[in-house]
Amino acid sequence: MENRRSFLRKAAITGAVIGLSDSIVASAMSIPQSSKIALRERNIILFQGDSITDAGRNKENASPNTPQMMGSGYVLQAAGALLHQYAEKKLVIHNKGISGNKVFQLAERWDRDCIDLKPDVLSILIGVNDFWHTKGGNYAGTAAVYETDYRALLQRTKKALPNVRLIIGEPFAVKGIRAVDDGWFPEFDEYRTIAYKLATEFDAVFIPYQKIFTEAQKRAPGAYWTGDGVHASLAGAQLMASAWMQTVK
Amino acid sequence: MENRRSFLRKAAITGAVIGLSDSIVASAMSIPQSSKIALRERNIILFQGDSITDAGRNKENASPNTPQMMGSGYVLQAAGALLHQYAEKKLVIHNKGISGNKVFQLAERWDRDCIDLKPDVLSILIGVNDFWHTKGGNYAGTAAVYETDYRALLQRTKKALPNVRLIIGEPFAVKGIRAVDDGWFPEFDEYRTIAYKLATEFDAVFIPYQKIFTEAQKRAPGAYWTGDGVHASLAGAQLMASAWMQTVK
Repeated sequence: MENRRSFLRKAAITGAVIGLSDSIVASAMSIPQSSKIALRERNIILFQGDSITDAGRNKENASPNTPQMMGSGYVLQAAGALLHQYAEKKLVIHNKGISGNKVFQLAERWDRDCIDLKPDVLSILIGVNDFWHTKGGNYAGTAAVYETDYRALLQRTKKALPNVRLIIGEPFAVKGIRAVDDGWFPEFDEYRTIAYKLATEFDAVFIPYQKIFTEAQKRAPGAYWTGDGVHASLAGAQLMASAWMQTVK
Repeated sequence: MENRRSFLRKAAITGAVIGLSDSIVASAMSIPQSSKIALRERNIILFQGDSITDAGRNKENASPNTPQMMGSGYVLQAAGALLHQYAEKKLVIHNKGISGNKVFQLAERWDRDCIDLKPDVLSILIGVNDFWHTKGGNYAGTAAVYETDYRALLQRTKKALPNVRLIIGEPFAVKGIRAVDDGWFPEFDEYRTIAYKLATEFDAVFIPYQKIFTEAQKRAPGAYWTGDGVHASLAGAQLMASAWMQTVK
């Protein structure tokens, strides 16, 4: 406890000086150095997911490492941090998130948008639509379908790319903010649990976004971090990126 | 020296843990805590400048604190960091940079795009076009014109907003990258010197972007940080934002 307090004090002091205070993330997650993904020179990093990852990126003719490809969400903030912090490593960063995607839609485009890119590091954030879209009656998937589809996708990925290092983001929803009413719970929590379970199963680094957004609400209201309970605001995107940056070294 | 080394070691350790290593910025600038701008609750922060600040922002109907208003450059990265790091302060962040602007063009729109917004903190990055556009023969300004116009703009600002706290960014150009050939120097350096001089005159916090980009080139080539020598890449935007974040506390 004393060690942690002493560390946090040091972090706060240094953070103030170097311009980053990451107390929210620090209180929500702590990944041991040994569990972080060691980035290597010319590593290819791929972000995959739905609209939260997509964030309005240019899907026509954007190149890796450009703001155009990153969109305006957490991927842009994380990519900026990666390219700055690990400048010597000449990383190649892709964003292939697509709005509205559920796991089965990732699977449909997985060869082109993942396997063919040969990522060394693959970050996936998927699941909120797998639940959300059932609410409108246009999608009949269940948590069990999410689990089965997601596991199959990860197996297929590991088979094609045995050395890929995985990062799995927890699907999250901020209760009380627009789209996210009480009716989401506890059912939505199953999707979060499945993501965690699969992260363990596939030796992925897990990002507990739900807890991160919960911690963040001690600093500012939910609507500050997300406009609709599902999509991050600029503040929320930075929060997510800061958490994401904990997964690598 | 020992203190500095010990600080940098601590910063490196903590930075690794909290996800930011800012050694480039740290080696290029060091603003004493007492000189930093103390952000207060509900402070309005305005970014002003040319295309580097504009960065393709939505000029039609974007709200403060949104990625749409910030564009995809250093302002987006800085705004994200500000909103995350100072979440309790409920900051209101505007970007009003416009591509191609020189100082006299800022002056033409200054009432609407600065004074009327009543910023508490005003960050200006202007000057590269004041020099660059003379190369094409379509603009006849000189360094002396830049200085006169810029001083008048700052005087006008201080008169209308006596309590505004100023941040002045140094115009910069990365030699050898596309647009920036040897013919830029030493003439362009005069503009840098003027910006520094005015920062001192008006008690502004100065950001030495030229030195920052010079330091950055020890880590990766110039083309990594800027596509054309003038506009920052995503990596360069993050670098600039990290430097910018040093100006506030």
